[in-house]
Amino acid sequence: MQIFLNPPTDSWDELCKRPELENSALESSVTSILDAVKKFGDKAVREYTKQFDKVDIETLLVNQNEIIEANKIVSKKLKSAIAIASRNIKKFHSIQKPSTIKIETMPGVMCWRKPTPIERVGLYIPGGSAPLFSTVLMLAVPAKLAGCQEIILTSPPNQFGKIHPAILYAANYIGVKHIYKIGGIQAIAAMAFGTESIKKVNKIFGPGNQYVTKAKQLVSNLGTAIDIPAGPSELLVVADKSANAKHIAADLLSQAEHGGDSQVVLVVSSETYANSVVAEIHKYLATFDEKAKIHESIKNSRVIVLKYLEDQIKFVNMYAPEHLIINTSDCNSVVNKIVNAGSIFLGPYTPESAGDYASGTNHTLPTSGGAKAYSGVSIDSFIKNITIQKLSKKGLEGLQSTIETMAEAEKLPMHATAVSVRLEKK
Amino acid sequence: MQIFLNPPTDSWDELCKRPELENSALESSVTSILDAVKKFGDKAVREYTKQFDKVDIETLLVNQNEIIEANKIVSKKLKSAIAIASRNIKKFHSIQKPSTIKIETMPGVMCWRKPTPIERVGLYIPGGSAPLFSTVLMLAVPAKLAGCQEIILTSPPNQFGKIHPAILYAANYIGVKHIYKIGGIQAIAAMAFGTESIKKVNKIFGPGNQYVTKAKQLVSNLGTAIDIPAGPSELLVVADKSANAKHIAADLLSQAEHGGDSQVVLVVSSETYANSVVAEIHKYLATFDEKAKIHESIKNSRVIVLKYLEDQIKFVNMYAPEHLIINTSDCNSVVNKIVNAGSIFLGPYTPESAGDYASGTNHTLPTSGGAKAYSGVSIDSFIKNITIQKLSKKGLEGLQSTIETMAEAEKLPMHATAVSVRLEKK
Repeated sequence: MQIFLNPPTDSWDELCKRPELENSALESSVTSILDAVKKFGDKAVREYTKQFDKVDIETLLVNQNEIIEANKIVSKKLKSAIAIASRNIKKFHSIQKPSTIKIETMPGVMCWRKPTPIERVGLYIPGGSAPLFSTVLMLAVPAKLAGCQEIILTSPPNQFGKIHPAILYAANYIGVKHIYKIGGIQAIAAMAFGTESIKKVNKIFGPGNQYVTKAKQLVSNLGTAIDIPAGPSELLVVADKSANAKHIAADLLSQAEHGGDSQVVLVVSSETYANSVVAEIHKYLATFDEKAKIHESIKNSRVIVLKYLEDQIKFVNMYAPEHLIINTSDCNSVVNKIVNAGSIFLGPYTPESAGDYASGTNHTLPTSGGAKAYSGVSIDSFIKNITIQKLSKKGLEGLQSTIETMAEAEKLPMHATAVSVRLEKK
Repeated sequence: MQIFLNPPTDSWDELCKRPELENSALESSVTSILDAVKKFGDKAVREYTKQFDKVDIETLLVNQNEIIEANKIVSKKLKSAIAIASRNIKKFHSIQKPSTIKIETMPGVMCWRKPTPIERVGLYIPGGSAPLFSTVLMLAVPAKLAGCQEIILTSPPNQFGKIHPAILYAANYIGVKHIYKIGGIQAIAAMAFGTESIKKVNKIFGPGNQYVTKAKQLVSNLGTAIDIPAGPSELLVVADKSANAKHIAADLLSQAEHGGDSQVVLVVSSETYANSVVAEIHKYLATFDEKAKIHESIKNSRVIVLKYLEDQIKFVNMYAPEHLIINTSDCNSVVNKIVNAGSIFLGPYTPESAGDYASGTNHTLPTSGGAKAYSGVSIDSFIKNITIQKLSKKGLEGLQSTIETMAEAEKLPMHATAVSVRLEKK
């Protein structure tokens, strides 16, 4: 973990850079899989599942027996944790639910905006060694609350052709009815284009490796919406000496353990304090296997020492972290100056893992500086707003001259005629 | 205009298709311009302006004299129309303004969501023969209301190196301070990457031809957000015999006059009524120059005759039109069954041109079926929501077991440690 002491402002751009991913040749291989699934449907999906997941799957849809089996395997303790987490997620997302707003902008001109659930959504849940069942809650709970008619969930099967029981349990617990044993690019393709087994969805959500991410980007260029552009997860911590160095070290490592491409950044005002955190990090790291990816991620990571709080805030807003922990004595005032961050964690008792799992906020957040323009996933992500208007004769009369004048100036005569023909004297 | 009589359901997919745009070779030529602007900044912008707009521009920024000049040229009548339209747009968008929402999901677990304006936004306004100053209002009014700190507007210069006075007037009227004489791909590139004259923006808005659209898509893959994927404009009208055929014809033509690639669709239950609308269309068309693009657009357009209202609604939701006029005697009940549309216009006195210009709703809307997943531009488009949380010691204690259990099941031990280290007995 490299320490940068009072780096000059003109070096900040460089310090805000995320690790570059090697992805030449990625696009063409992803495109060929997308095309094959579009053309050959389930047949192609099964072939890629054989190739990548090393398993032959006849029926892609998860059946009731598999759900029952998962229900038996998942521990009572985990079930209770899932219940508490989903209750909090439901609580926080419920208050976001938008309602129809209506206004008469001029006499006889009624305009309104009606939130309408997206009909069919697809949730992608990565499998592999760490089954991200928490992401099931983060996506399926708001999808349900929004009122999406069909929620489709795909997740890669293991070598025995099964989805991890915790993922199945969580999905069934929230009420997801259509679960498919498909992973990777072929899952994104199946949801984007539809196959014999899977109905085409309108929007795809969920994290994934760089192949899944690339597939989502490509299908979004072809007409299927996606949640947010995704990159490796990241955390920036602003701390002062009021914060326990060991706590900060644990927070940084909790992000670093996601994978070798995760980035963590620590922003502090004192070099001495920075060193004490780094020392705590190394104590923890010594307990990990030396081949663990967490070491790699810590290598990509940085400590930025900036003397003035004002500069620290400027740096944070420039970096625009996905997760931001502010563990300082004046965190309540610092947070008011943050304009670019996905999700913020305040004070000594708010580790990022609270929001990752159970406090109620969503953990699907903009990465790689995306927080400058994007929000994390929320109820809004599962809804589109339709605007509606109805004019009375009087309303149209009141706007006639305005519309006709503007249409004429934009050289669109039929725009004016559509008004005048309605109001001409018979 | 081809009439389809009670087309079978399995042909609807085909009937919902939009005209295909010829765009092979588009991507590589757009990419090369993006790359050049990224590398050479203003110098490249000036060269492309010379090449495409046939004018040599030294200072890209519009100066105060140009604003004063525009103010002199724009007629009093048009100024008054712009004032009324922008007042209505302001009214409708003001009521959408989100506020911070906060909830204690469990004792000691405070979670909130804070709407935060996007700092720097770029608005692209096409120029050419029809100066779309109405789009200035539709983008700049919500950007201002949202509180964006910097609003940059670009629009192509004419052969004399000037932006159309109505565009300059409207931009200045709303309070846009940074106006640049740049058009096309080079404008999108300049806003996405920044140049010596133009600061990089976080999100780009606005319509454009297929080159501009492709440029927006490509920069959105590289980290600059965009408003919505755009395609040619379109209108679907559902009418019954209560609607005056001449009004419907004027509505369809008001959309068709946008360009040769616009598509208009009429859905009715009676062939006789369909024929009467088509007859009115031809009467209007006879008044246009035979080379006018409106003829081409009408050729791409369709009348769908479906006997049952239920089928008509199904078709509309499958087509997911950008603009939907429901001019039927029971329009108030029909609208409740529409789930996919950008903006809806109800009853005999609500032509699309009301919403295009002046009623208050936004005219930047999802095309090409995008209405299944996207909303039109609104205040939300200029805002991102940051989630924030603060746990007390008691709050973290209440979640400890839940977080630890979930972290363990996801094989992320440091996620658990970040909690336990804070609560361990000293």
